[in-house]
Amino acid sequence: MNKVLTKRKENYSLWYQELIIKAKLAENSTIRGCMIIKPYGFSIWEKIKLILDKKLKNTNHQNVYFPIFIPKSYLNKEAEHIKGFAKECAIITHYKLKNIKKIPKLYIDNKTKLKEELIIRPTSESIIWNSYKNWIKSYRDLPILINQWANVVRWEMRTRLFLRTTEFLWQEGHTAHSTKKESIIETKKILNIYADFIENYMSIPVLKGIKTKTEKFSGAKTTYTIESLMQDGKALQIATSHFLGQNFSKAFDVKFTNKNGKFEHVWGTSWGTTTRLIGALIMTHSDDNGLILPPLLSPIQIVIIPIYKKKIELKKIKKIVLKIKSILKLKNISILFDSRSKYKPGWKFTEYELKGVPIRITIGTKEILKKTIELTRRDTNKKIIIKIKKIEDEVVFLLNDIQKKIYNKALLFVKKKTKFVNKYEEFKKIIKNNGGFVLAHWDGTAKTEQKIKEETKATIRCIPINKKTEKGRCIYTNKNSTKRVVFAKSY
Amino acid sequence: MNKVLTKRKENYSLWYQELIIKAKLAENSTIRGCMIIKPYGFSIWEKIKLILDKKLKNTNHQNVYFPIFIPKSYLNKEAEHIKGFAKECAIITHYKLKNIKKIPKLYIDNKTKLKEELIIRPTSESIIWNSYKNWIKSYRDLPILINQWANVVRWEMRTRLFLRTTEFLWQEGHTAHSTKKESIIETKKILNIYADFIENYMSIPVLKGIKTKTEKFSGAKTTYTIESLMQDGKALQIATSHFLGQNFSKAFDVKFTNKNGKFEHVWGTSWGTTTRLIGALIMTHSDDNGLILPPLLSPIQIVIIPIYKKKIELKKIKKIVLKIKSILKLKNISILFDSRSKYKPGWKFTEYELKGVPIRITIGTKEILKKTIELTRRDTNKKIIIKIKKIEDEVVFLLNDIQKKIYNKALLFVKKKTKFVNKYEEFKKIIKNNGGFVLAHWDGTAKTEQKIKEETKATIRCIPINKKTEKGRCIYTNKNSTKRVVFAKSY
Repeated sequence: MNKVLTKRKENYSLWYQELIIKAKLAENSTIRGCMIIKPYGFSIWEKIKLILDKKLKNTNHQNVYFPIFIPKSYLNKEAEHIKGFAKECAIITHYKLKNIKKIPKLYIDNKTKLKEELIIRPTSESIIWNSYKNWIKSYRDLPILINQWANVVRWEMRTRLFLRTTEFLWQEGHTAHSTKKESIIETKKILNIYADFIENYMSIPVLKGIKTKTEKFSGAKTTYTIESLMQDGKALQIATSHFLGQNFSKAFDVKFTNKNGKFEHVWGTSWGTTTRLIGALIMTHSDDNGLILPPLLSPIQIVIIPIYKKKIELKKIKKIVLKIKSILKLKNISILFDSRSKYKPGWKFTEYELKGVPIRITIGTKEILKKTIELTRRDTNKKIIIKIKKIEDEVVFLLNDIQKKIYNKALLFVKKKTKFVNKYEEFKKIIKNNGGFVLAHWDGTAKTEQKIKEETKATIRCIPINKKTEKGRCIYTNKNSTKRVVFAKSY
Repeated sequence: MNKVLTKRKENYSLWYQELIIKAKLAENSTIRGCMIIKPYGFSIWEKIKLILDKKLKNTNHQNVYFPIFIPKSYLNKEAEHIKGFAKECAIITHYKLKNIKKIPKLYIDNKTKLKEELIIRPTSESIIWNSYKNWIKSYRDLPILINQWANVVRWEMRTRLFLRTTEFLWQEGHTAHSTKKESIIETKKILNIYADFIENYMSIPVLKGIKTKTEKFSGAKTTYTIESLMQDGKALQIATSHFLGQNFSKAFDVKFTNKNGKFEHVWGTSWGTTTRLIGALIMTHSDDNGLILPPLLSPIQIVIIPIYKKKIELKKIKKIVLKIKSILKLKNISILFDSRSKYKPGWKFTEYELKGVPIRITIGTKEILKKTIELTRRDTNKKIIIKIKKIEDEVVFLLNDIQKKIYNKALLFVKKKTKFVNKYEEFKKIIKNNGGFVLAHWDGTAKTEQKIKEETKATIRCIPINKKTEKGRCIYTNKNSTKRVVFAKSY
């Protein structure tokens, strides 16, 4: 195991890339901007899916699967949708390859040109609302609460493993409602499901807010967002929930008869989270020695490493390990016993540190005599020696404690990196040198937002919700303002 | 609920299509050959995934995710792979749409033509073996046992919901081994995992065998297959497991150093099952009134329908239902209590019959007085009246019994439809009038196979494994043969 990672302080971006490769989470493929998610990385995604999927089902959402192809003309239907990301996408024009003569080389068969090009879904609003037209006739057919776990493609120019890739995995929810009120409640409900998951399972503190017109989803009336702060002081948008109003129902002519027998356009929402969550997980907690994973999402929660010289010693250790395993299995704790003889303990320590396993247990023959084992927690590197019989209580305590402590550590970091600023000069200095969230007054215009972005690279991450109004003056134009918004440089 | 399905005897194909639509499993999308899997259909797929995924993980397979795009040149590398299905596929040529002037209509931006076209994966051997080249150096890196759940695209000309669609969902396993023996063991192990799942969870009797050269996977040395027989006498290939030999390791130059320090090409397997499984499920068990689902895969195992006139009666019924639910929940039995007042009991009976719910319970006020309830099983339509306190035992018994009985019924059907034939005239008559599996001698040549196919539309479904050798003469050429093979018309 090549131990050395670039230090975060030296080059945060390089540290991130190296960590992903060395912890075997993912790697770049030969296809531009597409990643290969390797078993260890994918098992984290599976944990995320399992928990989030359950939360969505418990709130009456059902899973479906819609085709990956979207006819080009569908993208034309919602005007804002075109302007947005829908332009940079994979375009299918033909459906057959052929050999010319007997050379085993394939060419496009030009006779198979499609009458209408197909786009690989960058998101599925258009194809889903096109179906809603047939599914929804009356208020009795509403609400429709569906979700799908799928791959999507956006032809991004600058890609980065997990954070922004040409193809990525996500879930996308698409709901239809009979009233504006109900669809706004749904939008907020989902935002809170995301926030709960991100804080309590991922141990990442969240900032909830609303996107400005410039930053909102193309096609939404209002985009609710969850933002968090990475260790390099940049913000990351982790999840979004969109109130679509009647935009898509009007674009696709989806009407229902209400209880009074009158026609109305349907109200909609959509919302999603992606494999970017794994990027957030890595960037929030990890250190110069490797990953630090919250126990609730860690594929391996405990690794046990035997310390021995002779085979007979290993045999004795194995007996103890079997006992420990059987006790902890009842608590649904996932344990890996790494007894491979081809690697030395030191190599293994480095390996599981890199992989972010929350607790490492070492057992040697001396310890067996004393009926003790040594536990090392990944987050603080602290060691404790305990009696074997106390293992259950200790491990349960430690896993809970790590889950909380890494959240608290991240929260402290966000607090330290959150500044209230009233002068533009100070604003520029902080954005440049300190990074973090900067709360400042803004006059509410897209023009000012654009100017600040051009001059500082900071964007408005969100207009925080649940914050009181406060009179002030725009940091840039000095015009009146009633609320601070959150600026930051971002991924 | 529009009750009437076309009868199977009248038009089996139409019955199948109507059933899928009316049971709300799936529907055709506006995109050629692509289906929308609706919540009820998708929840069956989720059950299949959950069980099969667990079986694969228990045998040390790990999930991964590889890009959906395959560079055209990769398909060139394995000669047979080109000849096969790899030609009819979705081809991506550009990555940007643009507006011309201010008209909100999108055109392909010709400046964004790709240097090399990308193909949507029809299967992932090529991109995965291209990565194995970097992953595998030594025998210590082997075996690699990976699997992915993904969508794939094959540009099929004739499509049919679930059975053959342009895009479909599947799992594809891809393993790499250091010896031929180990990779053959893996191929067979997977075949047995599939067979176990299909027989014990889907209640479908299977025929295991080997494909002829003509019918095997393009790129495999040997294809193992699982075939089953549908109610119209046609065979359906449900799952395949391929021994790849060193075909892909040679095509992609994947070598390892063995224990003696010498270079060898890696041995490979690949295997898959698809959303076609749902098609098999429907076609094997269902009847003219709708689906019949094996309890182990049924999203709803029991539906409870109240019979009442006044609200006060419903209240009393609800009390009993709550008690029943709490008892059966402990057994992990999924129950739906349909107390909607807008639909009458008769409508509901038809609805859940259509949806194949294994047990229907009705409770009325009269029954409450007698402390009894009425249970109707979907497979036989038989009713029994039992004391409420006996519900637990009775339901557990019935669910097990239905699971077994529908298997036995299907097995009896297969046996009845399996014929040993020695004369070509008889062969033709049976294939034409009776359908089913026909076991006959074959001279082992592709030419004869082709002739029989042309004349009768029957193909060799497989060369059965675990069958004794038997001397005989080819039904078509009268040449010597040592084993019967299985002919059938197929989907």
